[in-house]
Amino acid sequence: MERRKFLGKTGAGLVAGVAAAAPAVAAAPTVKWRMTSGFPRNLDTIFGAAERLSKRVAAMTDGRFQIQVFAAGELVPGAGAALDSVVSGTVECCHTASYYSVGKNAAFGFGTVIPFGLTSRQQNAWVYEGGGQQLLDGFYSGYGVRSFLGGNTGTQMGGWFRKLVNTEADVKGLKFRIAGLGGQVWAKLGAVPQQIAGGDIYPALEKGTIDAVEWVGPYDDEKLGFYKVAKNYYYPGWWEPGAALHFFVSNKEWAKLPADFKAAFQVAAAEANVGMQAAYDDKNPKALARLLGHGVKLQRFNDALMDKFYKAAMEVYAEESAKNPAFKKIYGPYMAYGRVENAWFSLAEASMSQFLERRHT
Amino acid sequence: MERRKFLGKTGAGLVAGVAAAAPAVAAAPTVKWRMTSGFPRNLDTIFGAAERLSKRVAAMTDGRFQIQVFAAGELVPGAGAALDSVVSGTVECCHTASYYSVGKNAAFGFGTVIPFGLTSRQQNAWVYEGGGQQLLDGFYSGYGVRSFLGGNTGTQMGGWFRKLVNTEADVKGLKFRIAGLGGQVWAKLGAVPQQIAGGDIYPALEKGTIDAVEWVGPYDDEKLGFYKVAKNYYYPGWWEPGAALHFFVSNKEWAKLPADFKAAFQVAAAEANVGMQAAYDDKNPKALARLLGHGVKLQRFNDALMDKFYKAAMEVYAEESAKNPAFKKIYGPYMAYGRVENAWFSLAEASMSQFLERRHT
Repeated sequence: MERRKFLGKTGAGLVAGVAAAAPAVAAAPTVKWRMTSGFPRNLDTIFGAAERLSKRVAAMTDGRFQIQVFAAGELVPGAGAALDSVVSGTVECCHTASYYSVGKNAAFGFGTVIPFGLTSRQQNAWVYEGGGQQLLDGFYSGYGVRSFLGGNTGTQMGGWFRKLVNTEADVKGLKFRIAGLGGQVWAKLGAVPQQIAGGDIYPALEKGTIDAVEWVGPYDDEKLGFYKVAKNYYYPGWWEPGAALHFFVSNKEWAKLPADFKAAFQVAAAEANVGMQAAYDDKNPKALARLLGHGVKLQRFNDALMDKFYKAAMEVYAEESAKNPAFKKIYGPYMAYGRVENAWFSLAEASMSQFLERRHT
Repeated sequence: MERRKFLGKTGAGLVAGVAAAAPAVAAAPTVKWRMTSGFPRNLDTIFGAAERLSKRVAAMTDGRFQIQVFAAGELVPGAGAALDSVVSGTVECCHTASYYSVGKNAAFGFGTVIPFGLTSRQQNAWVYEGGGQQLLDGFYSGYGVRSFLGGNTGTQMGGWFRKLVNTEADVKGLKFRIAGLGGQVWAKLGAVPQQIAGGDIYPALEKGTIDAVEWVGPYDDEKLGFYKVAKNYYYPGWWEPGAALHFFVSNKEWAKLPADFKAAFQVAAAEANVGMQAAYDDKNPKALARLLGHGVKLQRFNDALMDKFYKAAMEVYAEESAKNPAFKKIYGPYMAYGRVENAWFSLAEASMSQFLERRHT
C-alpha cells in the first residue's frame, strides 16, 4: 500500500525540458487517494464539490497529490456507507453528510445539522471559529477520522405533500418519506416516517403509498419530478436550517501527508464549502421560478404547527441527552451558540433581508 | 524587477537533507509579491483575511510563492490607495473593498455592494456562479487588474446616532459620517454626508460636530467606543446588505504565474472569503451582547423611512445609469439577479431564520 501510494514521480513541478534531466534524488512524492462520495452524479451540485476539491488539489500540487472521486454505488453502496468505508480503511477519504450516520450515534447529527439547529453561515462560524471543529473531531476521533466542512445546501424545503398539513390532526398517520432526527420529531406528532430508496420514491408518492416526501430544495427536487404528483411544496424544512457536507479523512492517512498537501486539502475543502453554497444559491432561485410555472403551490408550515414541532424536537433532544453522553457533550455548546447567533442575526441581517424580499418579490 | 522576483531557490519543496545536494537545474522558481491591505491591523477580522491568504499560499507552495502583506499606511496611505497601487504597478496585489473607488467610477460599487443590493450569500452566488465575475473583471480590465472575492462582513449596522431618526424631517441637515453611494442616498433626503478620517471621528461625535457615524458592525464598532457618546445603534445598514472584500491582482503579474501558483492564489482567496464571514459571524454576536451590557439602545429604521431611502437609491441609480455606461452595464444584471434571489430567500431561509430568532431571543 505504502509503495503504491508514495511512488516517486520524477521531476514533478519542474519545467518539462529540465525535468527530463533531473536526477532521481530531486523527485517529489506522489500521493494517490480514493474518495467516495455519498451522492450520485445527478446531484451535481453536491457531487461537484468533491470533484472540485480533487481538481484543485491536483492543480495546486502540480499533479503530485491525486484524489480519484467515485460516486455513490461505484465503490460502496451510498450515503452512510461512504463514511464507513473511510473508518474501515477501504478508502482514504469521502464526501458525505455526517447525519447519515445518526443511526450509529445521534451525535453524528451536529456536523450536518439537527432540527431547529444552525443555518449555513452559523454552521461555518461555529465550526471554523466557535469551537465546533474541536468538538466534532473529538467525537470523530473515536472512529479514526477527522472532518473538513465541504459544502452546504442552505435551508432546505419541507417537501412535497399530496394534502394540506395545517393541524396536528393532519400530521397523525401521515406517511412521510424522511429519515434521521427529523423523522423522529415528526413521529412524536404521530407521523409515520418512511424509508424508501431513491428510485422507488416517485411511484410511491404517485400511487399514494406515501403521503409526502422531503428531498433538498427546488433545484434537486425539480429533477425528481415530485411536482407532477404532489402540488403542495412546503417550507421551511425546519429539520435542516442548513445542511453541511464534509470531507472525512482517515487520521492514519492524514498523518502521512506532507505539510503542503495537508494545506492544499484544507484550503480546497474551504473553497468547495463556499462554492457549493454559492452553486445552490444560484440554481435554487431559477428552479423555483420554473416550478411555480408548473403550478406548484407554496405552503408555509403555520406558526402553531411549527411550535409543536419545536417542542417535540426539544423532547427528542432531552431524551437523547439523558442516554447519550457524546450527544449531550456537543448539544449544550451547539445550542448555546445558536442562541447567541440568532440574537445577532435577528437585527441587521433579518431586517435587511425582509425588506429586500418585500421590495423585490 | 524580473530578476529580483524570479530568483531561483535551490531545492525548494524537497526534503532538507536532499535539497542540499540537489543541482541547480532542479530548482523551482520562487515568486515574491507584495500585497497592500486597504485596512489597518486593528480591523483584525478584515486584515486577517489577507494574512491568511499569504500564509496559505506559502504553505501550499512550500514557500515558493511568498506574498508579504502590508497594512494601510505602511506602503501607501489607505483604503482607495490600495487599489491604485496595484493599477500603477507599485505592488502586485492588494486586499481592499472596490467601493472605495466609487469616486473614480460608480461601477466600482458592485464588487463590494450598493445600497439595497446583494447580501453576502447572494454576492457569492452572483460572482462565483451567476456571471458577476465576468462583468466585474470586464470592467476592471480597463484598469489592468482582476479580482477575487476575499471576505464579507455580512449586513452592516446603520451606525451610531446621538438623536432618534424617525422621519424625513429628522434626516434633514443630519451631519452623518458616511461615504460613497450610501452618502449620496442620504443626501437625497437632506442629510449632509461628512468625510472624516479615522482618529477624528470619535471626538467629532463626542462634541456634536457630527450627529452620527456608521462603521461596520458590533465587533469593529465596539473597539472605537462610539457607544460611549451616542447610545442609539441603528439597523439595518441598508447601504451595505453585505460588504464584499477582494483581492485585486495586476493582470500583467498574474500572467507570469505558473498554473499551480494561480490555483493556490484562487483557492486561498476563496478560503479567506468564507473564513472572514465566519469570523464576523462568530465575533459580532458576542460583541453585540457586550454592547447591550453598556446600555446601547437598538433602533430599527422604520418602514416608512426605509421606503424613502429605497426610492432615493433608485433615483441615484437612474441618474448614474443615464450618464455612465459602465455602471449601467452591470446594474441591470446585478439588480435582476437580486430580484430572483430574493424570491427564493424569502421562503425557506427567511421563515426558518425568523422562527429561530423568535424562539431563541
